[in-house]
Amino acid sequence: MAENIQRRDFIKKTAIAGAAATLAPSLSFGAFKKNKKVRIGFIGIGYRGRNHLNNILANPDCVVPAIADIDPEAIKKAQEMIKKYDAPKVDVYTGGDYAYRDLLERKDIDGVIISTPWLWHTTMAVDAMKAGKYTGIEVSAATTLPECWDLVNTHEKTGTHCMILENVNYRRDVLAVLKMVRDGIFGETVHARCGYLHDLRAVKFNDGVNYSGGGVEFGKNAHAEARWRTQHSLKRNADLYPTHGVGPIASMFDINCGNRFTSLVSIATKGVGLHDYIMKHPEGGANHPNAKLKWKLGDVVTTIISTARGESIVVTHDVNLPRPYSLGFRMQGTNGIIDFDYHTRRIFLEGKSPNHSWEEADAYLTKYDHPLWKRYEEEAKGSGHGGMDFFLDRAFVEAVKRNEQAPLDVYDAASWSAITPLSERSIANNGEPQDFPDFTRGKWINRKPHFGVRDDY
Amino acid sequence: MAENIQRRDFIKKTAIAGAAATLAPSLSFGAFKKNKKVRIGFIGIGYRGRNHLNNILANPDCVVPAIADIDPEAIKKAQEMIKKYDAPKVDVYTGGDYAYRDLLERKDIDGVIISTPWLWHTTMAVDAMKAGKYTGIEVSAATTLPECWDLVNTHEKTGTHCMILENVNYRRDVLAVLKMVRDGIFGETVHARCGYLHDLRAVKFNDGVNYSGGGVEFGKNAHAEARWRTQHSLKRNADLYPTHGVGPIASMFDINCGNRFTSLVSIATKGVGLHDYIMKHPEGGANHPNAKLKWKLGDVVTTIISTARGESIVVTHDVNLPRPYSLGFRMQGTNGIIDFDYHTRRIFLEGKSPNHSWEEADAYLTKYDHPLWKRYEEEAKGSGHGGMDFFLDRAFVEAVKRNEQAPLDVYDAASWSAITPLSERSIANNGEPQDFPDFTRGKWINRKPHFGVRDDY
Repeated sequence: MAENIQRRDFIKKTAIAGAAATLAPSLSFGAFKKNKKVRIGFIGIGYRGRNHLNNILANPDCVVPAIADIDPEAIKKAQEMIKKYDAPKVDVYTGGDYAYRDLLERKDIDGVIISTPWLWHTTMAVDAMKAGKYTGIEVSAATTLPECWDLVNTHEKTGTHCMILENVNYRRDVLAVLKMVRDGIFGETVHARCGYLHDLRAVKFNDGVNYSGGGVEFGKNAHAEARWRTQHSLKRNADLYPTHGVGPIASMFDINCGNRFTSLVSIATKGVGLHDYIMKHPEGGANHPNAKLKWKLGDVVTTIISTARGESIVVTHDVNLPRPYSLGFRMQGTNGIIDFDYHTRRIFLEGKSPNHSWEEADAYLTKYDHPLWKRYEEEAKGSGHGGMDFFLDRAFVEAVKRNEQAPLDVYDAASWSAITPLSERSIANNGEPQDFPDFTRGKWINRKPHFGVRDDY
Repeated sequence: MAENIQRRDFIKKTAIAGAAATLAPSLSFGAFKKNKKVRIGFIGIGYRGRNHLNNILANPDCVVPAIADIDPEAIKKAQEMIKKYDAPKVDVYTGGDYAYRDLLERKDIDGVIISTPWLWHTTMAVDAMKAGKYTGIEVSAATTLPECWDLVNTHEKTGTHCMILENVNYRRDVLAVLKMVRDGIFGETVHARCGYLHDLRAVKFNDGVNYSGGGVEFGKNAHAEARWRTQHSLKRNADLYPTHGVGPIASMFDINCGNRFTSLVSIATKGVGLHDYIMKHPEGGANHPNAKLKWKLGDVVTTIISTARGESIVVTHDVNLPRPYSLGFRMQGTNGIIDFDYHTRRIFLEGKSPNHSWEEADAYLTKYDHPLWKRYEEEAKGSGHGGMDFFLDRAFVEAVKRNEQAPLDVYDAASWSAITPLSERSIANNGEPQDFPDFTRGKWINRKPHFGVRDDY
């Protein structure tokens, strides 16, 4: 918390020092005149919602008129955060699953950020678009294919924008590689890899008090994500969480902007990791009721997506086994290949790298550092997830200001989120290929890439 | 060559020094009495055949009565090699595609090693088994599913053994990881990765003189593998070369010995790498006739194999783009994960490795060094491909001596080689899943693992 307050102080001081043009670029955009604040409401202010709240409170262009949540504990923590920022008092909507709709009826809110359990995302985003609020929706945006269409159709009918809040698209190395791809460093792109390889066992199970670990409880006996996220592992066999990996690769492959996902195949292994965890845990063991459960989710789900341009993308969902965190990024083309991740950053470029040997990628990632990161590096510090959350939330605010197309828009939200139900169907049919709906209804042919093309947001 | 002669000298000296029990373990096995040599014939003595020839000539238990090839240049080079070893003069069979059959008619040959272009492998292996010669066959063993069955059926009908000569199964780190898997270090196995990620462009195209590079010729204008291997890239879209990756993983997953491959899905990218190479090459360019060709092989072919035990294996075939060499091995289970390759050797084991961090794998690979490597490390030096060819050819000779089941047997040959035609059919049908034939006809249920279980071969 102290870090955030420091950051706000820093922003205030820098603004005074005359950098206002950089730090408050909203001097005049559309409806937003000088001194007019962007008014952001929050639906869901749990752990993830408060990450966003923190960044929005720290943004001198923003004000937060209202928040909605059903959890008194989350509301209390959000109010403490707001108090520390000396922000105006917010109105709170609570007391029922649909209390958020009262928030949406307010006239003094320009945009909303939705950070709720997965099954609520589409319902709330549709309501928000119908209410005319510029909608920011956490990942994944939808659970079923009809929900993906609901997002697209509501956007097209209402004209309200919807942004999928995929923070990894703003990761520094991701944006550098995006720039490399667009500069043709890898030649014609052919293949990519990505995924979500994250040992979530201690997130899926806890002791009812802590966010992570200490027990093997989930559902009503558990705290935070374990209250709702774990049920999906019990009931669904699919790539449950594709967007952190796929979002960045989609931008590099111009998905929905000259290219699109055409089909996928998906294969799951047996699911033994969660049972094994419960059996081995000091609070678990063979007599714990959760040791009797049969988990539907395969421990490693591998999906291969084909694109209209003839590329393939291998997407891995690997969350039930012990392993270091990774998003497993690879980008490959006719001129070379890069593996970039927290643990592996290596590149080979024909004619540049030593014969048949990897080079460390850091020098390239620095050379191709994205203009956004060059410009806002200092401000991003401490915003969450290594700085990428600063860019994500700032981009959302700038898009709301301008009431423009979202940098990561409703078509991205639909096509990325569609991977879950499509992989589920493929797995259930032994890997049978599944066609992607064309959520753009052919507009991908003429749409131009719009994510990461500018240096202001 | 100097290296090999040194090795032979070393063997002679060591034998004199009293280590005969180790170096000539064939003092009495079945038909093979003391002082009786194992008689190995060669069908195909090109680059790969001469690798084997070199190892067999260096083996004091062996003699080479005859060789067969259609290429005078290859025969000349083989004869020079034989002369340097002071080995008895060999008979040469040449002059026609089927001259090798005369070699097979000889009574003084116990086993044959087949190292010919892919399309000849099965025909020659079937002929060799029918002739009662213990058959060693280079990878892949077969091109079509009926050929896979031909191998199995001929073995079962004749009782003659057939070994697929997959050298990577004998790589030091591969055998160490096999031992770790069998010792339960990774817990219950769940997932693996492997492949053949090798920039073959300069092997597929050369100048007609050199083995590698210098031009963009293939077929009759080219030398060595480019004479025949490249045609497959022009005509087939499949994982053309699966066994270097799949062989080692198959042994770790007990394939055909308590487990089996059940089905696969396979997706290919567009094929632009070979055309791009021809266009960029100083001897190529847009006016070269080979620049007009349309290559059928996708640049990156990704296959996911499912097993009867519920594991999955992601197999990558990536041979047309610039990149460092890799077989991309990963092994993962309920206790942890290892990535092992020339460039990446890292491991994470729950409760042993630092929290959420990779460890360097070398200490583990040393700790679990396979008894075979401990025993024969010195002898293996200089045998080819980092020593693994020594173990491969030695295992073949020891199996011939004993006339026992091959360490990598005909069922392995069939099920690994079947990946090519199955992936071809899957790719042609947009990734449609393909069932593996059960080449063991159910015997996999009761068969016990036999590869890498002993410390003598």
